[in-house]
Amino acid sequence: MTRRSLGARTLLFPTPMLIVGTYDADERPNGMAAAWGGVCCSRPPCIAVSLRAATYTHGSIVAGGCFTVSIPSEQYVREADYMGIYSGRDVDKFVALGLTPERAQHVHAPYVAEFPIVLECKLAHTIELGLHTQFVGEVLDVHAHESALDAEGNPDVERILPVISDVGKRRYYGLGKKLANAWEIGRRDA
Amino acid sequence: MTRRSLGARTLLFPTPMLIVGTYDADERPNGMAAAWGGVCCSRPPCIAVSLRAATYTHGSIVAGGCFTVSIPSEQYVREADYMGIYSGRDVDKFVALGLTPERAQHVHAPYVAEFPIVLECKLAHTIELGLHTQFVGEVLDVHAHESALDAEGNPDVERILPVISDVGKRRYYGLGKKLANAWEIGRRDA
Repeated sequence: MTRRSLGARTLLFPTPMLIVGTYDADERPNGMAAAWGGVCCSRPPCIAVSLRAATYTHGSIVAGGCFTVSIPSEQYVREADYMGIYSGRDVDKFVALGLTPERAQHVHAPYVAEFPIVLECKLAHTIELGLHTQFVGEVLDVHAHESALDAEGNPDVERILPVISDVGKRRYYGLGKKLANAWEIGRRDA
Repeated sequence: MTRRSLGARTLLFPTPMLIVGTYDADERPNGMAAAWGGVCCSRPPCIAVSLRAATYTHGSIVAGGCFTVSIPSEQYVREADYMGIYSGRDVDKFVALGLTPERAQHVHAPYVAEFPIVLECKLAHTIELGLHTQFVGEVLDVHAHESALDAEGNPDVERILPVISDVGKRRYYGLGKKLANAWEIGRRDA
């Protein structure tokens, strides 16, 4: 198979659509879309989000030492995209979008009440990588809409319907069909 | 909407399926599946993968200071799952799966020739977070199968067809339908 070099770029598939929630110095709630992030540790449970220092949310995380991550379902793709285009410096995005900024229970940060999954995070590490600062948050709690859970109470991605970002061609996608069970299809005796 | 607390857990949607490629001390190629990872900086372009110290790949990255990330297409979900179940200590996974370990051009590490997208990474930061070590790799090059590129030479997620991991219910999914254009549907004038 012929391969073509694309140069030194940040192309990873899939990337998530994460809404990072913070209060600013005036206690105004803000939410910012981020695709640079992921899980980074199981114990303690930690996730990472990377933000440019120029963003409004960056300053709020540094000042407050905490944040939430709300995961939008695909029905909110317009609202989530808006949260990646405009700055909380200029507009109250929750008001503009008619979304509800709920106060987190474990940290001083708001989350998007309409979104099915929320992680409440305490800032654990701040790592300067270049254009982006990586914030590692220890997850103090995850909470979910009842409608996002299966009969056993586990989050079900088919009920969450998260947004998948293609940052190469700048498109959002939905979840596709189930391919296989993990830690199962690859077993030698499968 | 009623919300239910699920406790302090690492639930993020979607998570990727990344195959981390290294040579061991005997120059034997190895590939390990990782879901804990993502992009973490745009300049320099960096991605992060988190691995437990107990894994064979962890030692190879520490020793070699580099790794590749190969992104499987959904037709290779079985092979990718296998690479997350078995250890390179015990088996040559490339031989067992009939996959081709190609030598990277910019770093001393192998990649999976059959997989459509590969990132070649030089280890830039090693961050001990707890059970997992986060390895931040500077991306020195991305290369792709010609068949994964659109007419303009850009990687097209609809041709890559990456695997999406649901680590909550331990399932793999394919890519779904296009929802919208990013940095566009959320514009006030859209």
